[in-house]
Amino acid sequence: MTNLLFPSIKEAMSAITPLDPHCLAESQDHLDHLTKPVGSLGRLEGVAAQMMAIHSGTLNLPLKKGAYVFAADHGVTAEGVSAYPKDVTAQMVINFLGGGAAINVLSRTHSVELTVVDVGVDADFANAPGLVHRKVCRGSRNMAQEAALSPEELEAALGVGLEMAGLAKEKGQKLISVGEMGIGNTTPASAITAALTKQPVAKVTGKGAGLDSPATEKKISVIEGALARHFGNLDRQLDPMEVLRCVGGLEIAAITGLVLGAASHRIAIVMDGFISTSAVAIAYALEPKVKDYLFAGHCSEEPGHQVLLNYIGVEPLLSLRMRLGEGTGAVMAMPVIESAVRLYSEMATFDSAGVSTTTK
Amino acid sequence: MTNLLFPSIKEAMSAITPLDPHCLAESQDHLDHLTKPVGSLGRLEGVAAQMMAIHSGTLNLPLKKGAYVFAADHGVTAEGVSAYPKDVTAQMVINFLGGGAAINVLSRTHSVELTVVDVGVDADFANAPGLVHRKVCRGSRNMAQEAALSPEELEAALGVGLEMAGLAKEKGQKLISVGEMGIGNTTPASAITAALTKQPVAKVTGKGAGLDSPATEKKISVIEGALARHFGNLDRQLDPMEVLRCVGGLEIAAITGLVLGAASHRIAIVMDGFISTSAVAIAYALEPKVKDYLFAGHCSEEPGHQVLLNYIGVEPLLSLRMRLGEGTGAVMAMPVIESAVRLYSEMATFDSAGVSTTTK
Repeated sequence: MTNLLFPSIKEAMSAITPLDPHCLAESQDHLDHLTKPVGSLGRLEGVAAQMMAIHSGTLNLPLKKGAYVFAADHGVTAEGVSAYPKDVTAQMVINFLGGGAAINVLSRTHSVELTVVDVGVDADFANAPGLVHRKVCRGSRNMAQEAALSPEELEAALGVGLEMAGLAKEKGQKLISVGEMGIGNTTPASAITAALTKQPVAKVTGKGAGLDSPATEKKISVIEGALARHFGNLDRQLDPMEVLRCVGGLEIAAITGLVLGAASHRIAIVMDGFISTSAVAIAYALEPKVKDYLFAGHCSEEPGHQVLLNYIGVEPLLSLRMRLGEGTGAVMAMPVIESAVRLYSEMATFDSAGVSTTTK
Repeated sequence: MTNLLFPSIKEAMSAITPLDPHCLAESQDHLDHLTKPVGSLGRLEGVAAQMMAIHSGTLNLPLKKGAYVFAADHGVTAEGVSAYPKDVTAQMVINFLGGGAAINVLSRTHSVELTVVDVGVDADFANAPGLVHRKVCRGSRNMAQEAALSPEELEAALGVGLEMAGLAKEKGQKLISVGEMGIGNTTPASAITAALTKQPVAKVTGKGAGLDSPATEKKISVIEGALARHFGNLDRQLDPMEVLRCVGGLEIAAITGLVLGAASHRIAIVMDGFISTSAVAIAYALEPKVKDYLFAGHCSEEPGHQVLLNYIGVEPLLSLRMRLGEGTGAVMAMPVIESAVRLYSEMATFDSAGVSTTTK
């Protein structure tokens, strides 16, 4: 599957088990006895059954939820692939710590504990509550000229994600979201998408945080050049870890690690937008069983996102045309998932409420 | 516009004012200065701007929210148009009062005050917290044989809705949802939809709470018969109030009254599924300015719902394939609307957070 099978990742992958079909069927049976027409809660029923099966039929309320945001810089910004200057990565981390970013507001609104992880920002941060210092290096290398990460850097970034999965488990979190901040990181996300799905780069590359058309054209050619440099012919099956190393990034690798770790600990994961989903797609390519633990929070406006969701085979819960990242679309979907679980746990049954079932 | 222009309804209609375009533009300008790429919150930005304009630029947090569920029976159930026996309307009201229905769970989960209004159930209820006794009569008449409501019953049911709008204003609610319970009420909803939108009955009629195909065919012919009996040729413009009277129902009329009243009090309204949207469509046909105060909570699985949403010209916030009614899809959308308002109110600006804007 991969030539870069680090022991810690191998261990997490082998600990991921598929959901018990018996538990899924029992959960659906319970849903069918609640005071509502059969199936009338729509997608909430599948969400509830999946959540119950992930947690082996026992889930305490209120649901303990965590949001993880990994921040890192990207050497490929030297190619002019972003509408924002690179400094904004560090400025936004400071904004996260001050509580003023979108992800802060949404985490507070929906009672989600936010953890910000510096896995590779090109700046130094003081200690602050909610900030985890795990800088692997001061940003990835420029994929247009060399591999974005060395094998050691990749292993370290994956390890940061695995460590955060352990932290989530220790905290008793049952549902976590994965998000990121990294100026320039739609470029690695598009490169990963093209490499995994074999779709043309132009089809899976968008304007990111706000490029105009000529700049988007430039971005496409940078990605095409990087893919050609590292992999030559894309038609062949590529090693997902090697894709992550050559055209990924530190925050993307950390998310891949977190997803594999969380699934191994039976924690449900909500994906966010294009970048976090590219990281999840690497995890899925390595170990398809992670899919049982995944929810797609939303579908973003970046054109590659739907391509990735199709690749993994998941349907987004929301489609609000968001394209912000940080994990915002994932946290927006948490009330949907929590509602599903509460309906499952708190609704009366036809018997208990004395309500008649259908006339047939 | 209508020959049944009751004084109370005329008063509410004339008090509805369009949103101030200046306030909308100011709200969008504020959104453009928050620490995120311009437009990157997608639909949440339009929701926030609309909410701010509805409330003239001032909105206290946490948002005070109310859910109104109107229950009534339908004489047309005698034609065998529902999968459930008529008794279920009363049984479900008792379930609401016991806290075990889906709308109870969702209202608790999302901090929404639930009010259940008996506007015409064919059963007697004891006093209970959260239940408002406003029985106009013990259900509508069978539209297949006569008009569903007399003019007096229609006026009384509309008045119940207007009264609840006044109650919502007194309670300081800024966002309310409209929902219903009434076995058989997809039949009036389909009849209203066909009458207002001129679409064929077969296109706007579904299986309701769970009919099989032959029963759905029967339901279609009952609706076609009722429309022919009351209106003859549907191609002409019909009086919306006369449509509501002949093929509507008590809970539907109450929702129409609530929507007109709430808009007149500048309270934002979230529509639920097919039945509540048919009531809103009547309000919109009477006074198109109500649209400024509306949010479409979700798109249900009933085929007529999307037709009605197109008729009003609103895009649903959620699409979770729900088809339960009770206001459940509307309350599910409240966290989306509340998130939008909180992002608007609590995010830092580029200036305040010291974050750079685009390089251009």
